[in-house]
Formats: sequence, structure tokens, C-alpha cells
Amino acid sequence: MDYKQEMEQKGRLAKAAAKKLAIAGTNLKNNALLTMAAELITKQAEILAANQADIIWGQTNGLGKALLDRLLLTPQRIEDMAAGLRQIAGLPDPIGEGISSWTRPNGLEINKIRVPLGVVGIIYEARPNVTVDAAGLCLKSGNAVILRGGSEAIRSNLAIAKVLTQAVAKAGLPEGVIQLIETTDRQAVQVMLKANQYIDVLIPRGGAGLIKTVVENATVPVIETGTGNCHIYIDSDADLHKAHPIVLNAKCQRPGVCNALETLLVHEQVAEDFLPALLKDLATCGVELRGCQATKAIYDACAVATDVDWSTEYLDLILAVKIVRDIDEAIEHIVTYSSGHSEAIITENYSRARKFLAEVDAAAVYVNASTRFTDGFEFGFGAEIGISTQKLHARGPMGLEELTSIKYVVYGNGQIR
Amino acid sequence: MDYKQEMEQKGRLAKAAAKKLAIAGTNLKNNALLTMAAELITKQAEILAANQADIIWGQTNGLGKALLDRLLLTPQRIEDMAAGLRQIAGLPDPIGEGISSWTRPNGLEINKIRVPLGVVGIIYEARPNVTVDAAGLCLKSGNAVILRGGSEAIRSNLAIAKVLTQAVAKAGLPEGVIQLIETTDRQAVQVMLKANQYIDVLIPRGGAGLIKTVVENATVPVIETGTGNCHIYIDSDADLHKAHPIVLNAKCQRPGVCNALETLLVHEQVAEDFLPALLKDLATCGVELRGCQATKAIYDACAVATDVDWSTEYLDLILAVKIVRDIDEAIEHIVTYSSGHSEAIITENYSRARKFLAEVDAAAVYVNASTRFTDGFEFGFGAEIGISTQKLHARGPMGLEELTSIKYVVYGNGQIR
Repeated sequence: MDYKQEMEQKGRLAKAAAKKLAIAGTNLKNNALLTMAAELITKQAEILAANQADIIWGQTNGLGKALLDRLLLTPQRIEDMAAGLRQIAGLPDPIGEGISSWTRPNGLEINKIRVPLGVVGIIYEARPNVTVDAAGLCLKSGNAVILRGGSEAIRSNLAIAKVLTQAVAKAGLPEGVIQLIETTDRQAVQVMLKANQYIDVLIPRGGAGLIKTVVENATVPVIETGTGNCHIYIDSDADLHKAHPIVLNAKCQRPGVCNALETLLVHEQVAEDFLPALLKDLATCGVELRGCQATKAIYDACAVATDVDWSTEYLDLILAVKIVRDIDEAIEHIVTYSSGHSEAIITENYSRARKFLAEVDAAAVYVNASTRFTDGFEFGFGAEIGISTQKLHARGPMGLEELTSIKYVVYGNGQIR
Repeated sequence: MDYKQEMEQKGRLAKAAAKKLAIAGTNLKNNALLTMAAELITKQAEILAANQADIIWGQTNGLGKALLDRLLLTPQRIEDMAAGLRQIAGLPDPIGEGISSWTRPNGLEINKIRVPLGVVGIIYEARPNVTVDAAGLCLKSGNAVILRGGSEAIRSNLAIAKVLTQAVAKAGLPEGVIQLIETTDRQAVQVMLKANQYIDVLIPRGGAGLIKTVVENATVPVIETGTGNCHIYIDSDADLHKAHPIVLNAKCQRPGVCNALETLLVHEQVAEDFLPALLKDLATCGVELRGCQATKAIYDACAVATDVDWSTEYLDLILAVKIVRDIDEAIEHIVTYSSGHSEAIITENYSRARKFLAEVDAAAVYVNASTRFTDGFEFGFGAEIGISTQKLHARGPMGLEELTSIKYVVYGNGQIR
């Protein structure tokens, strides 16, 4: 079977499964999720063996240490994946929720209710835990899912998908609720991007290159996720005792994620008070510093930043630092370079806080808090399929609700126009 | 200036204008809308003269009668466009609305608020009233708009756009809030479809060919609108006194629109009672009938439908008719051929009504009412930018709310992870 036939066959199965899953009750879906969790534990030996084969392939083919770590599964990581599924089972079911209802003067009763999207396509890179996460979230929100993982993790993903599909069948849900594209041929992604007859929405999860490929080539609607060139602006009226730990946290706690700080903007009036101790602490944490000329004048042990630095999402222990004249220059810088993910101001000034929140256009804007909170769990959604950086459909952390659409159900008694 | 330069220039202006419009107060926006309405009336001579030139061009170049009628402007039609703007001014402003807010255990206060999409691109065909409608709806919802109309209406659209842009400037809004692409070069559309750095969302309004071009070629997120292959299923327990006028209304009241009926499905138990009188009345209204073999056996004066008929959106006085064994066959037919727009069941049976509403996947599903109600005005939205037939972001009639996105505004007091 070539990749086109595979897509055709899985697309058809997914469509049929989605139709049944859309009307499946909450108990049935939760039972399937708990069965999936139990079977992951019971059958972990198969999964770990497959993962070991991926790891050996990765070592032989020169995968980097970070990538190998993301690829690695352990009994603990499998338990974490199972725990994630149990947690999803415990979340409220978004499907069938009445969003609003009203009666028109002619007596028509209109109900706006939450329904699944249908078939969701997830295209992702080397982390096999995404296979479990995405399958669980899609199932709970009533969507059939077609998964396409990275070739490095194909053995792990096949083993996981086998366990999950057996579990959903055991729980009484149709074949086709969870499917993994088995071919590692890159052309399969191209076919998936244009499979409008089978896939309702595509969600790419991975690096900038993957996202770009999907956005540029898909005819299926896409939810763009992920790129975060995040800024924190330290205002002249900032409480520097709050600012210092916030910057350290936003840069260092987990530098490889999209809500981590990439460029620090500091009002010139507080730069000399604030920067030396902060930059020293950052350097102690291993952060490489790249400052504007004014920053370098205050703290000589930093490199000089170029335009490339302002627009780079490092995803690493590197920080760009710029001293600005005022909040307007800070906002102007953010408008120019921001990817619209998460932006923060540190200030005690009421009007400038309001101005920043209103004028900075991003999924999440903060006063006096770390950008690291832009996250489905931190927001209290109980789950996350990704963080949308587009404005259509979903913006910011996406939980179960963002995996749904709506439908108008209209009750009449003979109305005509 | 070539079309690429025009897109660049207008894109930049739109981005800058959107930033200001996003924080413009409701009074300022309403005042701009009322000024636009007033100036359309004051300057109607210019608009009518330009329209006359379009009409002459259209006659010379063989435009059909229907197209010429859609292109034609009259003082009454200009008054209608102005009235539309006044009505939009009277609608609630969606921007700034708090959708929900909650406080996390760590004290972070999260607010989900409604914000504009940013820059909306509208690509449409020969109706110059869309220029006014779309500009008004985008302005009220805080979005800058870039309009690209059909070449047949270019003189009318230029005249209208000139009046509108002067009016918004007079009201104190920035240049770039409303812009029309002036070149009629078709390549300009291709550039617009990929202008991700300037346009946040594209909404095509027009025929199937236009929609297809946009969906297949755009890298900017698209809201797909319009195709409606709508069905009405007459159940064995239908009240035929309700069914008869509903079918007549759904097919004949305005056959050229997307929510009009295209295929009638009739339960075999009621076909002989129901169809002869109905089909005769439809024929009297000028409807051409294309039935399945069983339909033809009952009503000989109809043509025999082929597979093409089941999948065609006629947008004309033509109706396909199929007799089905039961509700399952009806739903199966709808699942196979529906474009997911509007679908209705006529029945007095409680369980079958519920089954139909649950299992038919469309933007609007009806019991005992005409499909013609799927419309922003009929739903009570007070306005409509189109009817979405996709599941992402908006589904069904789109009013002001569907032209917005959201933003998370987070208040902290020093929180870190």
C-alpha cells in the first residue's frame, strides 16, 4: 500500500469513526480513555522494546543528545502518559454543551451547541508522548484523529498506536477513532495537507520549519501553533524586587519552550539599578547575553546584539537585552518583533499597565508575572493540545474546548420566510 | 505601481490602521459608520456615474442579465447600503467584551476578552454593495479591511471606496482602515492570498470557483463560505400540511441563494400522498424537477435524476427528488452529498427528530422549518458577513462576533513558576 492509498483508507475510516464518536456518550469515551491508560501500563514491555529500537537507530544515525532524550521512553514516562489519559477522563466533556439559545419573533428556537470538529490531523516531531496526548484529547472532544509523527519515533509510535487502537476497540468504539500514518515517506505529509475530504483541521506541533511547511502547503484549515518570541518590558515604575525573579524564571526555568523569555526590554531610568545584578545572575545560570550598545555600556560582559537577535526565538539559554527610552519604544519594538505569543510588562504604574495590555497584540499579555504561565495546565484547562499563535478559531493555550466547533439546532413548527 | 507594490503599501497601511482601530472607542467607530452612510447619500451622483460606466462596460462585454442586475446601483440601492451602515452603528460593539475571567490558585487573574482579528481581506465578485457591507462590519468589529472586488464592478467600487475612506478620515480614523485593491490584474489576488505578514484572515464571498481558488492557494487563514447543497427530508410521520409550504418556500422564495433547497428526500410511505400535489405546485412555480425512478413512477412529468443531480447546488429553479426507505437512508444520502450548510427534517416523531439533529453534521439543522432561515438577519445577529461552511472559527451565519478573536489579559503580582 503506498502513502496515497494509506491516506485514502485511513481518511475514510476516520470519517466513518468520527460520525459515531460524535454521538458517543461521555461514559463511553471516558471508559475508552481509562482502558487506553491501563493498556499502556499492561503492554509497556512492547512499547519500551520498540522505543529501544528507535533509540538505537537514533544513536546510529547521529541524533543529538536533546533529541534522544525527547525520544526516550521509560516506565515512569509511560506512567506519566497513562496519568495524562486518566486526567483527561476526569475533565468535563465539552460536547453537547449549550453555548446559547434564543427564540426568534417568528417562534423559531435557535440553539448553539458544541460539537466535535470531526477528523483532526496532528503532524508532530520526535516526542512519542504526543501520540498519547493528542489521541486522548481528540477522543474526549469527540474527534477522530490521524497522527503523523516523526520518522525517528516511528517504532515507538507504531507500538503505542497499536496499544491505543486495541484499547478503544475493547471499550466499544469504532476502528478508525485513532490512527497513525505508518509510512515514513515525506510525501505522505503532502497528501495529508491536502486531504480536505477527510480531515477537518490540521494541527502541526513542532519546530518552526514544520509549522512553516504546513501553513504554506495545506489546503485543510490549520491551527498554527508554537512560535514564541516573548518579551518582558521593565518599566521605569517597576518594582525591581518583583522584576528580578520574574526575568530569571521566564528565561531559565525551561528555556526550550515557546513561552520562555527571549528579549528583555528595560526603561533607561532603571537600567543602571536593575541590569548589573540581574545580568550577573543570568550569566551565573549559564545564560549567554546579547545587549544593545547601552546595555554593553552598563554590563561589559555581554555580546552586542544585532537585528537578528531581536527577531530570534532562541529556545536556549540566550537572552537579548535592549534599553529603551520609554514604554512607546518598548511597545514599538514588541509590535515589530513579537510573534504574538506572550508579552509582559513589569510596572506599578496603573495607566502604563493598561496601555501595555491594550496596545500589545498577543495571545497572552501580562502585568507583573512570568510569561511562562501561557500554558493549558497553568491556565487551568487541565490539558493542552498546543498554543495557538494565530487569531482564527483559537488563540493561546488550547484545551478541549478549542478542539470543538459549533452547530445551530433549530426547532420550528412550520416556519417559512 | 504594480500589484505587488500596491499590496505591500496597502498591507502596511492596514496593519498600522488596525493597531489604532483596535483601541478606538465605540462612539468613534459608530460616528465613522454614520458619516459613511451620510456621505454615500451626499455623494451618490459620483457613485451612480461610475456604476453607469460599469454597466455600459458590462453590456458591451456581454455580461448576462442576472449579473448586470447585481451590478446595477440605483438611488434606492444606495439608500439601502446607507441604511445597512446605520444599522451596524446601532449594533452592540463586540470589542472589549469580557468572555470569562477566573483566578488561579497562585493568584493570577486571567481574563479572556474579545479583540479584533486585525486585518481582514475580503475577496468578492460583482456586487458593489459588498464593498459597503464588508467595510461597515469590519470597521465596527475593529478590523482594518482590504477589499478586492470583481473587475466588472471596479469603477463602482473605486467610487464607493473613495467616499468611504474620505468619510472615515473625516470621522477621525486613520488612513488604511478601509482600502480597495485598485488593480484588476488577477495576479493581485494571488499576492493577497499569501500576504500573511499583512492579512490575518481572508473571507472569500462568491461562487464555488472563487472559493476553491482561495482555499487551495491561500497561506493566510481562510473562512470558507457559501456552498449550500441543502436537503429537506419528509419523514413518514411528517405533518404534510407543514411540509408542503416549507418545501415550496425553501425552493422558490429565492432559489439563487446558498440556503435554498436543492434535494428533497421523501419517505416511501408518504411519497404517494405527498408528492403529486407538491410537485405540481413546484412545476407551476417554474421549478424543473429531476426525480429518482420511484419519483418518476409517481409523477411522470419529471426528468430522471443522475448522481450529478444529488451533488449539484443548482442555485436555480431546479429540484432533485428522491424517495427513501427510511430515515437512515435519508441521513446516509445527506452525509454523502451535503455541503454541511443547512439540513431539515419534517416530522412529528420525537425520536426521529432527535436522531436527525444529532447525526446530521451541518452548520444548521432544522426540525419543521425552511432551510432559508440560515442567515445572519434571520438568526437575529443584525448583520452578516457570510455563512461559514467550515468548522474552524465560525460555522453558519457570521455576524460581528465572528469577526473577532480573543486575547488573554493576565494580572499578576510577581508570580513565577
